[in-house]
Amino acid sequence: MSALSDLQATLDPSRKSWIESANDSTNDFSIQNLPFGIFSDRHNDARRVGVAIGDQIVDLVALQAAGLLNVAAKTDVFARDTLNDFIALGRDAWRSVRIQVSELLARDTATLRDDAALRARTLVRQAEAQLHLPVQIPGYTDFYSSKEHATNVGAMFRDPKNALLPNWLEIPIGYNGRASSVVVSGTPVRRPNGQLKLPDQERPVFGACRKLDIELETGFVIGAGNALGEPIACEHAEAHIFGMVLLNDWSARDIQQWEYVPLGPFNSKGFATTISPWIVTLDALEPFRVAQPVQEPQPLAYLRHDGAHAFDIRLEVTLRPHQAKQASTISRTNFKHMYWTMAQQLAHHTVSGCNTRVGDLMGSGTISGPTDDSCGSLLELTWNGKKPLELSEGGTRTFIEDGDELTLAGWCQGDGYRVGFGACVGEILPAQR
Amino acid sequence: MSALSDLQATLDPSRKSWIESANDSTNDFSIQNLPFGIFSDRHNDARRVGVAIGDQIVDLVALQAAGLLNVAAKTDVFARDTLNDFIALGRDAWRSVRIQVSELLARDTATLRDDAALRARTLVRQAEAQLHLPVQIPGYTDFYSSKEHATNVGAMFRDPKNALLPNWLEIPIGYNGRASSVVVSGTPVRRPNGQLKLPDQERPVFGACRKLDIELETGFVIGAGNALGEPIACEHAEAHIFGMVLLNDWSARDIQQWEYVPLGPFNSKGFATTISPWIVTLDALEPFRVAQPVQEPQPLAYLRHDGAHAFDIRLEVTLRPHQAKQASTISRTNFKHMYWTMAQQLAHHTVSGCNTRVGDLMGSGTISGPTDDSCGSLLELTWNGKKPLELSEGGTRTFIEDGDELTLAGWCQGDGYRVGFGACVGEILPAQR
Repeated sequence: MSALSDLQATLDPSRKSWIESANDSTNDFSIQNLPFGIFSDRHNDARRVGVAIGDQIVDLVALQAAGLLNVAAKTDVFARDTLNDFIALGRDAWRSVRIQVSELLARDTATLRDDAALRARTLVRQAEAQLHLPVQIPGYTDFYSSKEHATNVGAMFRDPKNALLPNWLEIPIGYNGRASSVVVSGTPVRRPNGQLKLPDQERPVFGACRKLDIELETGFVIGAGNALGEPIACEHAEAHIFGMVLLNDWSARDIQQWEYVPLGPFNSKGFATTISPWIVTLDALEPFRVAQPVQEPQPLAYLRHDGAHAFDIRLEVTLRPHQAKQASTISRTNFKHMYWTMAQQLAHHTVSGCNTRVGDLMGSGTISGPTDDSCGSLLELTWNGKKPLELSEGGTRTFIEDGDELTLAGWCQGDGYRVGFGACVGEILPAQR
Repeated sequence: MSALSDLQATLDPSRKSWIESANDSTNDFSIQNLPFGIFSDRHNDARRVGVAIGDQIVDLVALQAAGLLNVAAKTDVFARDTLNDFIALGRDAWRSVRIQVSELLARDTATLRDDAALRARTLVRQAEAQLHLPVQIPGYTDFYSSKEHATNVGAMFRDPKNALLPNWLEIPIGYNGRASSVVVSGTPVRRPNGQLKLPDQERPVFGACRKLDIELETGFVIGAGNALGEPIACEHAEAHIFGMVLLNDWSARDIQQWEYVPLGPFNSKGFATTISPWIVTLDALEPFRVAQPVQEPQPLAYLRHDGAHAFDIRLEVTLRPHQAKQASTISRTNFKHMYWTMAQQLAHHTVSGCNTRVGDLMGSGTISGPTDDSCGSLLELTWNGKKPLELSEGGTRTFIEDGDELTLAGWCQGDGYRVGFGACVGEILPAQR
């Protein structure tokens, strides 16, 4: 069932769906995509596994109940409030389910297309559904793998002539983040309070963050973990990845600047991290694989892999002030600029023997491109507030203001179709008094 | 049932048990202690909740089945492979169970004492039991709260004249650790491989850690979490703590030194963290509450609490080389030296709005005392290898060698009894080739 030719067929640019909205070349959820998520709706508030297609969601619980989904394992992995049990079945199972759903949704397949009652039971309009955090996340790690971002930050806060720290070109630098506060797109985010060190005062003051920022990132979700003491080799690492999401690593720059020495960011990041609700499988991203940037010096042996391991994913950030009609695009960039690949990140993470588990989330680090307007943070876009951004509606911005709604978007552009992530949105609420 | 007088009775130094080993003034598990853990044994390999007493374990599943334990909630919290469901019942439930167990084990209570068959069903000898990781840990945070430790490290690697960084006296500095690799005492620990930057080479090399170290710490376990956006006030923080463990934050100093700038330690810590198997409740520690060190400057308002919030816990580290008969004590110190309290750590962790969950583990940071022989790491004890330690058997040590077994011990010394943690042990295996 999961033969390579079936997998290839799901990626065929000419495949169309009888769900017409999926065939719109600007819809994130083409039949080539078929990402997995967790949803509920007003007719059925049980959380369950779904697949996005056009403006619809395929309910996998209902599909299986109708006898249309063959899963060669315990049968109850879809009536769950997270994807973890499904993911734990392994790659053959993910592939097989995606292939079966693709075939059912293909224009020439009559099963659902011609049966209104069956369609009513198995499809839910996205507009009527609520999306939930797709995975239970046992561990969240955030990397720092954009050379442009690391260079910008180093130039701003350290030495413009030696902006990259000596270890940066050798190590896919990462740190452990706070898994408990990872929230799904749409969850409002409260501006954090914390210690701020103002330049004119000897001691820090306590108050609301004044330099609230985004970090435009992607994240990957572990599909197969590794045991303690058994590293994942770089050349096998991609087989351990279930899929990708967009990730906004909200950052309180003033809190970060004061707290981060010597053990790294803590309260400046731990208040919230937002991810997009649909996990796009690596299978769906395969046609968009491209070469990563040349790495010089050549990495140590445990970080080497042959072939292309980057992905051409277009990324965009918009900001919409409170009650504004129009959102302003403040950044456009691409995931393919990342210096370190996901495979290298995972190989490095585990080379010490550290174990990973199904559902672990790994953030890419802020994704900044080579130009001034392709930076993944306001810190860089406004050069720490020195160069305010002009919005098309709502004035200027140095950092985020209360009521601002920030949206990350990301998609691979195929020939006439998109493999996209859906929005990763968060509105900022005022700090607690 | 959980009236204050019943709680007080469990702490009465004159209370003795009919299990005579518990009355030995050097046994960690007096009737005043009664810590909770997860065990199995060769007659019953199901993991379940137990309470340590002397050289025995009380099987709470068996106790409840015998009708001797009244728990005012769902009844199946003890037949579990972690304590999380029991902990989630809340403080009244922990107290009530501890009080009931104390009364059943008290010398004057005949119920079990005089019923051999009942004793056979409800008691397991520790020597015949296997102890497991007591909690599922959703998040692991490690603090850095010993002023002596931070001063030693600062003097060694930065500036002896300004050893403490400017933020240290204002912030209970902490960082997110790796929860997946927290293991229970007795689990062998493999020496990690990683990037090492040798002074005579321009680029790092890959290899086995050459400066493997311990960090002597305690940890506390969250008993009641907080919702995202709802900080825990310092004066209420202790009510959120279920209890404490010993914690060895194994550290690869050479990997750490190269990787930690600017985002903190990662592979140098993530390969393993060992905790002791029994969680000692804050109730049992109450008689050992003492004043924390004077904090100057006075912390910001959100970090203030009235009264005494430190605990007088004696700590000891021993090292036993492979096949040596004798272990050498390499450090003796006390938890009461810690500058920042657990309450302050938790208040700081959540002041940004960060949420915590039942089972979260919070490490104290390396506990170093005021004297040269009271340091909690080999880094400090040998001053980064410059002053080797003389062992009573097995030569000298700068850092840990393969086959070394490191043991942390900790206890509160009452008048004729101990409230102790049991050992926190790990033997180092050679690095993977």
